[in-house]
Amino acid sequence: MQLQAHPYKKENHCDHYTHELIFKNLYIDTNQELIVYMPASCHVCKSEGFQALTRLVVSVNGRSIITSLNITDDGLLQDGEISLSKSAAKKLEVNEGDKLNVTHMDSLHSMSHVRAKLYGNTLDQQAYTEIIQDISGEKYSNIYLSSFVAACSGDNMNMDEIYFLTKAMVDTGNRMYWGKGVIADKHCIGGLPGNRTSMIVVPIIAALGITIPKTSSRAITSPAGTADTMEVLTNVNLTMEEMRKVVEKENGCIAWGGAMKLSPADDIIIKVEKALDVDSEGQMIASILSKKVAAGSTHCVIDIPVGATAKVRNMDAAVSLSLRLKEIADLIGLKVEMIFSDGNQPVGYGIGPSLEARDVLDVLQNKPSAPTDLKERAVRIASEIVQLVWNLPREGAHDLVIEKLKNGTAYKKLISICEAQGGFKEPQTAKYNFTIESETNGIITSVDNRKIARIAKLSGAPDSQEAGVDFLVQLKQKVEKGQPLFTICSNSPGELNYAFEYYKQNKQQILKLSYE
Amino acid sequence: MQLQAHPYKKENHCDHYTHELIFKNLYIDTNQELIVYMPASCHVCKSEGFQALTRLVVSVNGRSIITSLNITDDGLLQDGEISLSKSAAKKLEVNEGDKLNVTHMDSLHSMSHVRAKLYGNTLDQQAYTEIIQDISGEKYSNIYLSSFVAACSGDNMNMDEIYFLTKAMVDTGNRMYWGKGVIADKHCIGGLPGNRTSMIVVPIIAALGITIPKTSSRAITSPAGTADTMEVLTNVNLTMEEMRKVVEKENGCIAWGGAMKLSPADDIIIKVEKALDVDSEGQMIASILSKKVAAGSTHCVIDIPVGATAKVRNMDAAVSLSLRLKEIADLIGLKVEMIFSDGNQPVGYGIGPSLEARDVLDVLQNKPSAPTDLKERAVRIASEIVQLVWNLPREGAHDLVIEKLKNGTAYKKLISICEAQGGFKEPQTAKYNFTIESETNGIITSVDNRKIARIAKLSGAPDSQEAGVDFLVQLKQKVEKGQPLFTICSNSPGELNYAFEYYKQNKQQILKLSYE
Repeated sequence: MQLQAHPYKKENHCDHYTHELIFKNLYIDTNQELIVYMPASCHVCKSEGFQALTRLVVSVNGRSIITSLNITDDGLLQDGEISLSKSAAKKLEVNEGDKLNVTHMDSLHSMSHVRAKLYGNTLDQQAYTEIIQDISGEKYSNIYLSSFVAACSGDNMNMDEIYFLTKAMVDTGNRMYWGKGVIADKHCIGGLPGNRTSMIVVPIIAALGITIPKTSSRAITSPAGTADTMEVLTNVNLTMEEMRKVVEKENGCIAWGGAMKLSPADDIIIKVEKALDVDSEGQMIASILSKKVAAGSTHCVIDIPVGATAKVRNMDAAVSLSLRLKEIADLIGLKVEMIFSDGNQPVGYGIGPSLEARDVLDVLQNKPSAPTDLKERAVRIASEIVQLVWNLPREGAHDLVIEKLKNGTAYKKLISICEAQGGFKEPQTAKYNFTIESETNGIITSVDNRKIARIAKLSGAPDSQEAGVDFLVQLKQKVEKGQPLFTICSNSPGELNYAFEYYKQNKQQILKLSYE
Repeated sequence: MQLQAHPYKKENHCDHYTHELIFKNLYIDTNQELIVYMPASCHVCKSEGFQALTRLVVSVNGRSIITSLNITDDGLLQDGEISLSKSAAKKLEVNEGDKLNVTHMDSLHSMSHVRAKLYGNTLDQQAYTEIIQDISGEKYSNIYLSSFVAACSGDNMNMDEIYFLTKAMVDTGNRMYWGKGVIADKHCIGGLPGNRTSMIVVPIIAALGITIPKTSSRAITSPAGTADTMEVLTNVNLTMEEMRKVVEKENGCIAWGGAMKLSPADDIIIKVEKALDVDSEGQMIASILSKKVAAGSTHCVIDIPVGATAKVRNMDAAVSLSLRLKEIADLIGLKVEMIFSDGNQPVGYGIGPSLEARDVLDVLQNKPSAPTDLKERAVRIASEIVQLVWNLPREGAHDLVIEKLKNGTAYKKLISICEAQGGFKEPQTAKYNFTIESETNGIITSVDNRKIARIAKLSGAPDSQEAGVDFLVQLKQKVEKGQPLFTICSNSPGELNYAFEYYKQNKQQILKLSYE
């Protein structure tokens, strides 16, 4: 049968053809990946040939996002309904009952640059800018992100490309302006457990009259990040405006940087790098420097811990990284100085927010019980900042720093900063704790940092601020049978039990002793 | 408070510590990626610090799979409940109410090889074997798969590595043995729409007494695959045993290869390559040759269509690919011959299963209306197979092939094969069709294959067998105003409407004419 007449009524079918579907919330958290859920019975999936993982543009009222499709059935969704993962629903700002539109995604132009990079080509500024814009616009699926990370891994980027990537990252995020000539900052590459130098360095530098608006991160996989530890003492959830007020009053702050969106593409890339456990020196340099420039910093001291289990394994790698950091920093207009430090063991005693905050206060209050390694690291970094900013000789800078620490000015400054951020609170102690004692006499020959961190997490850190591990001994220390090695702290008997059970199952590897 | 006594009761907590959770089916299809769903309130997530995308081992009764975590809330799942994506639930063989165990995944050793490859190292046989075993064991997340594809993309693999990868793929899948000296096969790289030569080549070759057990694929994104088109005429869902019986009786078969698991790792890798749109010559060679060897083939003709919009863009690339295919085939013990063919336009008239099956039958029945391009391609491939297997000169082989086609033996053989596979059915025609006529006089200067394929899919192909496009003209052909250009065929007015609406919106690009 051949229809001679027009085979359809145009107006009637228009809505149908544009694929309007009703939003129903299923509240599925897929982390950052944007997922759209549609039922197998959906007429749009059928007619368009959408399959699971097809890349789709979902739009409502002029806003749109790019998603990957997962297909549901059996009652979760009916034909005519559609759902989004939590991150996608939030980004698109949709509510139950909204009418969403779904279309096939055109191929992403910037992926042609990623493919070119995979095939061994060198990319220019425009290519990196397009890639980073699409990543920060959340247009890349995890598969795309992974291929970009892979393309840039190892030594695959030349210095020009690292600069282009850094610049692209700065240009796509928010940027802070402080209206002052000198803005100091510090950074530590591949943080060590317990290494809370920022909370000592910032008050010293601020007390010296130098502006240091520090943003820090929360723990992702560790028992505490600097933002978690600072949160024991005060509020860290500052808006940019609140941060500005604190810094105007006190010269410094320690705020959570997560909400600032200084380099949104980098935040996305880092999660995939972590999942792949792939290092890219180029991406690391771009990541560090772009965030510093976006935060408005002009002078930055970068601490590079070097050690077999640290991010940077040996001095050769540290020197090479440091030269490249310096070259890119010069190009982008940031003054930097690098410090190489010992990356072989945790810093201080406490592992977990409140225990680490206690160590920080002990150092600032010059208590005899304060951990000397944490103090020495903080003094060294603060001295380097003073040298860099004021162009002073080493001893002069060191003396100024020591003075602010010794006479209690730095301590008072931390308290003032806390007051300005919302009020100072003393760290509390956990409700339950259990001390592990040495079963023999001996000398401590190795400590498994990862397993110690695991115990701290099982005990409840960082969500439970007081939870964690108080590590009472050090490498090469002589211990006697019955001597306390470390204390597990927790606010619930159940979590204390999890942590202790894990210790029991792994105690051979956690702490090794040589017998005398 | 320091507890001196043991702070927990061991036996009571053991079940809790091993994380037993009750399976509840949510029926979410995530394609091949294995996803586990746990609620935000889950005590196991909290205590272990699991976050969305954490890699977890889920096990039941000694079976286990590796999954990525998505977190749900608000009623989909309660604390104590757990769900899996459809593919994961199927693989783990779980039922509603089963008790599942969840633990953190140890890092995958084979990913260290992928990282080494990304850093520019060359991998050995053992490394490729470990990677391919883990991929076929479905231990790789999409992020991991993407990094492996990226690491091997472009020209990154040397010939040794391509051989190692091919061998690893053969060794990890099922393998067919036919107990005969010569098993013929054919393959086409980057299929063209309508190019159903297999359905003509197989009966010719089988009629000549050469064994040719052909496995074919279904459409993934196209309007029809060879398995879909063969399914118009007969059953293609054969088990290995059924396939063996058909081949013993008729010398040949055309079965769906999807269920055979000849190279399971390759099936997984190809989906990610498609999503990335990344070509890796090494992976393509390994993919093609491993499946042929696993299928028990000894002699294989490979058709390489060359054209600007084909997979292989120009003759230089075709020659280079062909030399590498030959070298690896020699190493792995497979005799191959390559053909270069025109890859610039669709083959035959019909696009869609039944329309293509009609073209195939027209060729085999020597109808004057049969598409000559399809016939010529099939004859050329069949002749090459005869030359390769029997070591005949070109004309001798060609004459034998033409004879079987001309005298109707090949047609009878196809009918016999269909009968052996479950019975022959004639192709049917669609209920509705609409013919697009030329709006002017002119010469056809370009055809957009992708958009034509899109119209065929919107009309219902391949699920609706009779749906599709019957393309009535060719490049460089002179047409007059009112002359039929192509017919859209569909079994429902709604789908015909979708297809026509799409045509209307895109007609400028679909077919271009130069005016006289």
